[in-house]
Amino acid sequence: MIADIRDAVGDTMGITLRVSLDETIGELGFSNAELRDFIEMNRNLPDLWDLAHGTWEDCSGPSRFKEEAAQELLVRGIRELSDRPMVGVGRFTSPDVMVRMIKSGTLDFIGCARPSIADPFLPKKVEEGRIEDIRECIGCNICITGDMTMSISRCTQNPTFMEEWRKGWHPERMNAKGDSDTVLVVGSGPAGLEAAWALCRRGYDVAIAEARTEIGGRVARESRLPGLSAWGRVKDYREYQLRQRPNVEIYLDSRLTADEVMAFGFQNIAIATGATWRRDGVARQHVVPMTIAEGAAVYTPDDLMDGNIPGGNVVIFDDDHYYMGGVLAELLVQKGAKVTLITPSAYVSDWTRNTLEQGTIHARLDALGVNIVLNRGVTEIAVDHVVSNCVYTGRTCQYPADAVVMVASRSGNDQLYRDLILRQDEWTDAGIRSVKVFGDAEAAGPIAWATYAGHRYARELDGEPRGDALPFRREITELAAEHTPSPELCLHD
Amino acid sequence: MIADIRDAVGDTMGITLRVSLDETIGELGFSNAELRDFIEMNRNLPDLWDLAHGTWEDCSGPSRFKEEAAQELLVRGIRELSDRPMVGVGRFTSPDVMVRMIKSGTLDFIGCARPSIADPFLPKKVEEGRIEDIRECIGCNICITGDMTMSISRCTQNPTFMEEWRKGWHPERMNAKGDSDTVLVVGSGPAGLEAAWALCRRGYDVAIAEARTEIGGRVARESRLPGLSAWGRVKDYREYQLRQRPNVEIYLDSRLTADEVMAFGFQNIAIATGATWRRDGVARQHVVPMTIAEGAAVYTPDDLMDGNIPGGNVVIFDDDHYYMGGVLAELLVQKGAKVTLITPSAYVSDWTRNTLEQGTIHARLDALGVNIVLNRGVTEIAVDHVVSNCVYTGRTCQYPADAVVMVASRSGNDQLYRDLILRQDEWTDAGIRSVKVFGDAEAAGPIAWATYAGHRYARELDGEPRGDALPFRREITELAAEHTPSPELCLHD
Repeated sequence: MIADIRDAVGDTMGITLRVSLDETIGELGFSNAELRDFIEMNRNLPDLWDLAHGTWEDCSGPSRFKEEAAQELLVRGIRELSDRPMVGVGRFTSPDVMVRMIKSGTLDFIGCARPSIADPFLPKKVEEGRIEDIRECIGCNICITGDMTMSISRCTQNPTFMEEWRKGWHPERMNAKGDSDTVLVVGSGPAGLEAAWALCRRGYDVAIAEARTEIGGRVARESRLPGLSAWGRVKDYREYQLRQRPNVEIYLDSRLTADEVMAFGFQNIAIATGATWRRDGVARQHVVPMTIAEGAAVYTPDDLMDGNIPGGNVVIFDDDHYYMGGVLAELLVQKGAKVTLITPSAYVSDWTRNTLEQGTIHARLDALGVNIVLNRGVTEIAVDHVVSNCVYTGRTCQYPADAVVMVASRSGNDQLYRDLILRQDEWTDAGIRSVKVFGDAEAAGPIAWATYAGHRYARELDGEPRGDALPFRREITELAAEHTPSPELCLHD
Repeated sequence: MIADIRDAVGDTMGITLRVSLDETIGELGFSNAELRDFIEMNRNLPDLWDLAHGTWEDCSGPSRFKEEAAQELLVRGIRELSDRPMVGVGRFTSPDVMVRMIKSGTLDFIGCARPSIADPFLPKKVEEGRIEDIRECIGCNICITGDMTMSISRCTQNPTFMEEWRKGWHPERMNAKGDSDTVLVVGSGPAGLEAAWALCRRGYDVAIAEARTEIGGRVARESRLPGLSAWGRVKDYREYQLRQRPNVEIYLDSRLTADEVMAFGFQNIAIATGATWRRDGVARQHVVPMTIAEGAAVYTPDDLMDGNIPGGNVVIFDDDHYYMGGVLAELLVQKGAKVTLITPSAYVSDWTRNTLEQGTIHARLDALGVNIVLNRGVTEIAVDHVVSNCVYTGRTCQYPADAVVMVASRSGNDQLYRDLILRQDEWTDAGIRSVKVFGDAEAAGPIAWATYAGHRYARELDGEPRGDALPFRREITELAAEHTPSPELCLHD
């Protein structure tokens, strides 16, 4: 087929052949050794060999489960089988590893889709030696969830992703400063840090007030959980950038009251105070607080991140369904607990099917000895057990529990915002022009939505008021006018 | 809120208030008795009371689980609580039941979305007394699967659904006849019957050859399985209509060879010979035939529909994931077998989540005593047991099995088509202008795709050749030009 294509196109274009490094589909497919035989037999047939690992899950696993250069062993030595150049992938995020792959003669080209989403100017920054300016992909795979759920994609690190054309957001350049000059950002989690970073580039004088003694909010805390260290890059990139700027001040250990905020004299108040995991079970199964016996030991993910970690028989009730329940199961097993994870969903960490990691999470937890209980809720927490119901039949049974970790929903920490709104008539005297809440404090969600919310706040400050229903620029009109096909972004790295 | 709306609109429009007949969301929601109090308190507030049962699953259950007029008890007596008219729903498909609801004073209006999809001219046909011409909704809920999977919707009974504007298919009127005159339709399943019915309305002389001694193909056979009797309407409607036509002949017990077809002298040969359930396990888990010991008792759904029904410990291996595995579990329990249903999916009858019945199926099978085994495949069938693997960990275990019912994939019965294609150079002498295969014989799928394929064949006969990639007319261009919002069809009945 390739020879036929060659005959058809001659030397008018190059021909790339993508091959799977190791692939089985049920009982079929070929191994890495067979692939090497194949390349050797057809060594110079294509102009470029494009090497990638089997299924999307294999090829684009998240940082939680895939090391950088994860396909190195599958690729090593293949380059010698052909005179043609080779491109490969494997969650390459750092220039060091990319350079090593080239210098070691393992690959000729570095393929990376997700890192190019996190920073479209990555090659340019490497060329110019601006290594510290690279927004390194954290490997969370939230970009893929847009494809999987047929909705808009976001990137945790690059909030301009998908908005370059629609909203005119350049990944590196901000819009000009507006009329006002100063912003107090309350909270240094992903929303607050991104807002501050985007605002200071617009030319505002920015102060960040952080209640804790470290910056980063949820990304600092979650990055210390098993498998989530890359989450820390959300903080690291922004912290470094902010430290380079003369117009940004960061204040730690500074929990603010409304009185204090009113007294400071900032023109704009940006509330990015994050969210807190609920202890009362309200999430999907329970829309009002569930029955919890007095004396029952109920922990939240925040407790565990604070270092308060229960032992003995621990039941995790996961009614959140994203990564937190499974990650905490790993943590608890590491700390010696005997863990039962109960979820009303049919899948452990159900929503991670959209991040290509659900199957790996289940296998990992099983290997750790976690008792995985699917399709069951928890109707009641007693002092030494929980009562669990089958979601299909309602039949109940009990599981022993010295402690319960409640992975339910999160409540926005919006008290400061509410306090300020109540005093709206004092704003003018205090020199305040705007008070906004955004990120998890407004509506708890994935980290990518927090950086997006922070960036949007910064872009729109001093602009004409736009409701939350701000429409996207629609590509449909343009496409129809030009009769061109719909552009699609295909992630596969 | 309604009073405010009334103030705002005055008597320029009517106000409808939709209320749920019985609804709980977790611990919240209100009962049918509370709804009655509410209506009594606000008796004449809206101009029309719109009554519907709680969740979409409650309100729009399939015929397998919901009787016609399923909400009658929830509605009865409410009409007396207000002077305003009332509309209600509840899978109304037959004019008799509709009339009974009106005459008994239970409702003033009949709401029915699905039956209006199956036959948009239902009210007109009632008005004209053309009761036998109504294409009665079979309650399969395939229309809802388009919404659930963000793809095009189909209707089993009305193949023009969703194609009225795009393809210009009128639900009641066919395009004019083309150049040729005669068609032999081989097979009287949903594809063949619909093709014949659409063709005879175009003016072709049609002969239907059916290998069995009854017409209807899969819909005749499946309609005798538990809960699927409404499937028979696909056959009943078309059989009645065809019997009224002078230009259609139906031949039963007429399995045809290529020789016979070549000898008949029909100008067009329409092959709609259906599909056969595979015995070798090829479906999702197994892409090549699986390991089956000699002497193992392996049954297919076709065997069971032929009346060959095993007893003892029966394992159903459901790697199809639509309704058949669950339906056969019911059948086997009725016949006295002890049933274990094993599926690699996380859900029994997984795809029926798209038809709003998965939860009901699970509960039904559990109540019948079926041992439901999720997230496990079958790697090997021995004489007295099966070996089952966990889809996440690969760990195996055994289940005793006197017999295995293999619900795998289906193979198209396309031998006749292949035989005719091989003799293409004899067609002209035989007077044959075209030979086409469509429906399950070409690509096995839900019944709605078979009636669609049959209809499309009939619409396009003697037209200019169109590839399978025939583009839809795209509404995007028109919408963009007029700047109108996207029209959406909302199913809720």
